[in-house]
Amino acid sequence: MTLQELLGTELPIIQAPMAGVQGSALAVAVSNAGGLGSLPCAMLEPGAMRRELFAIHSQCAKPYNVNFFCHPQPAADRGREAAWQAALAPYYAEFGIDANSVVPGPARLPFSAEAADVLQEFRPSVVSFHFGLPSSELLDRVKGWGAKVLSSATTVEEALWLEEQGVDAIIAQGVEAGGHRGMFLTTDISTQVGTFALLPQVVRAVQVPVIAAGGIADARGVAAAMALGAAGVQVGTAYLLCNEVTTSGLHRAALKSEAARVTALTNLFTGRPARGIVNRVMRELGPMSPLAPAFPLAAAAIAPLRARAEGAGSGDFSPLWSGQNASGCREIPAAQLTRELAQGLA
Amino acid sequence: MTLQELLGTELPIIQAPMAGVQGSALAVAVSNAGGLGSLPCAMLEPGAMRRELFAIHSQCAKPYNVNFFCHPQPAADRGREAAWQAALAPYYAEFGIDANSVVPGPARLPFSAEAADVLQEFRPSVVSFHFGLPSSELLDRVKGWGAKVLSSATTVEEALWLEEQGVDAIIAQGVEAGGHRGMFLTTDISTQVGTFALLPQVVRAVQVPVIAAGGIADARGVAAAMALGAAGVQVGTAYLLCNEVTTSGLHRAALKSEAARVTALTNLFTGRPARGIVNRVMRELGPMSPLAPAFPLAAAAIAPLRARAEGAGSGDFSPLWSGQNASGCREIPAAQLTRELAQGLA
Repeated sequence: MTLQELLGTELPIIQAPMAGVQGSALAVAVSNAGGLGSLPCAMLEPGAMRRELFAIHSQCAKPYNVNFFCHPQPAADRGREAAWQAALAPYYAEFGIDANSVVPGPARLPFSAEAADVLQEFRPSVVSFHFGLPSSELLDRVKGWGAKVLSSATTVEEALWLEEQGVDAIIAQGVEAGGHRGMFLTTDISTQVGTFALLPQVVRAVQVPVIAAGGIADARGVAAAMALGAAGVQVGTAYLLCNEVTTSGLHRAALKSEAARVTALTNLFTGRPARGIVNRVMRELGPMSPLAPAFPLAAAAIAPLRARAEGAGSGDFSPLWSGQNASGCREIPAAQLTRELAQGLA
Repeated sequence: MTLQELLGTELPIIQAPMAGVQGSALAVAVSNAGGLGSLPCAMLEPGAMRRELFAIHSQCAKPYNVNFFCHPQPAADRGREAAWQAALAPYYAEFGIDANSVVPGPARLPFSAEAADVLQEFRPSVVSFHFGLPSSELLDRVKGWGAKVLSSATTVEEALWLEEQGVDAIIAQGVEAGGHRGMFLTTDISTQVGTFALLPQVVRAVQVPVIAAGGIADARGVAAAMALGAAGVQVGTAYLLCNEVTTSGLHRAALKSEAARVTALTNLFTGRPARGIVNRVMRELGPMSPLAPAFPLAAAAIAPLRARAEGAGSGDFSPLWSGQNASGCREIPAAQLTRELAQGLA
């Protein structure tokens, strides 16, 4: 079975879910163009999720994907958060921020029974997960209405684990990819693998279709991924300037500049490694810091710095998520980008 | 001009120079099969270099490549070497090694006037460099007999610099590649780039032919690299089990095992980041240690540990160089591997 047959789409091209920079509009545009649009739900509470899903349903009769994080909720660790606030204290002082004004708590939520309740109202035909898979109980609910389940692997071991848990297809996420690494059986970023090496090894190891992600920016990238045995591709960064995306002006400017050539994995913004364009706070504190609280708690303390800096026109404290290949970013309709990527399938 | 025309070869396939695991035999086999064989000279003193070059000349009338490192020679830093020996002291004790038996000094030498003298006797048609380029005086000598000059870039900036210095082609070395990173304008491994992202961005940035390296293990990898705009490929790891290679039994066993899936960049063995299969010393001290002396001086202190461990059948202290994709390693003649790789050019 081809990936298109599995997903029910015309094209084996998935728009990567990108929490924080897109909502239903991008998903609708990509799905209506024949690809698989994705709605990221990691930062949506149930009411917002329902509104976004309703917006997709009302504008698109084709298959789409709904994406969730599925991390364990960490216990609050006041000592660690105090150490992290101490590391950030010089910046708080610089911006005149009262450390007591920081609102602790998670900015990103894992898939839950409550989320499954909302999802079940819409019964999307594809659901993808990041950081492994939810509990078998929740997974069974999703499969119960016939949804195909995808998840990301960053190593061969993770791919084998996902296949054993019954996923329908595996996203091989090369180290080039922007945003959060999907890694869940390892926390060691020094052994993360590039797409050129990961993809063919995952293809060889598993029976299910493998979707290539990481560094794919244009039709030539799609052709290269298919040559390496991919059943399809997942593309994120190249969509970041599209008309339907809510990427901030600062983020857009960084993507269009030479700064976008220099990205790194950083845990400063959320607590888990995610790839973004190197900026001041990454240079000065990291990019990886042992002080950052567990995912997703690190986000709270940096939020007021980000707000203050962005208010002054600076991306010094913003997560400027990007993969290592921003060369495909253009201010065009997402449908046009999707069709151009599809030219690599020939 | 195609890369084949530039190099004078039948195929745009370069066997990566791999100091320590190969000599003239591999270069001869690959060049005679229509590719470009390479002789690594970083670990050869002039007499040995002359013998190896003579061996190539007497067995091969086709073009071949001679490769040199071109790092600055570091000043000896007794304080740093003492700190490094202190870090290794528990291992010395474990193996009963006298720390005073360590012979300091470089195990790898940069390209020099003396090396150029030997090289000029043979006037090879291709010379490649790692870690940038030698002095313009030495570079002019090499170009003086008509040799084509190649060097590795790990970022777009390095590629632009090399083009400006007049190299004839650029090797875009993705982070997947085994052995030493060619990085020379940066020391920051956190921003090194995967082949899927590096290759098309270098192709777009420069006018000279771009050779893809990193993660290419078979004909499909060659096809993918060509789809991304490469003029040719440089393949190393896939040759590591070939009949003409001197890879040790321990190294071969590691490459054939599942351990080869887990590699990392490490500076423990030489002082510069190089990719190898993760082993005990990498797990326990690194893989990157701020204590390791400057390249190439770190090698001295670890040498007796390596010798003692290997004598006991253990690769715990050996550099088990490998790229992230060892799936192409087979015990076959190098000519056969070269021809199989060429099937990806169609």
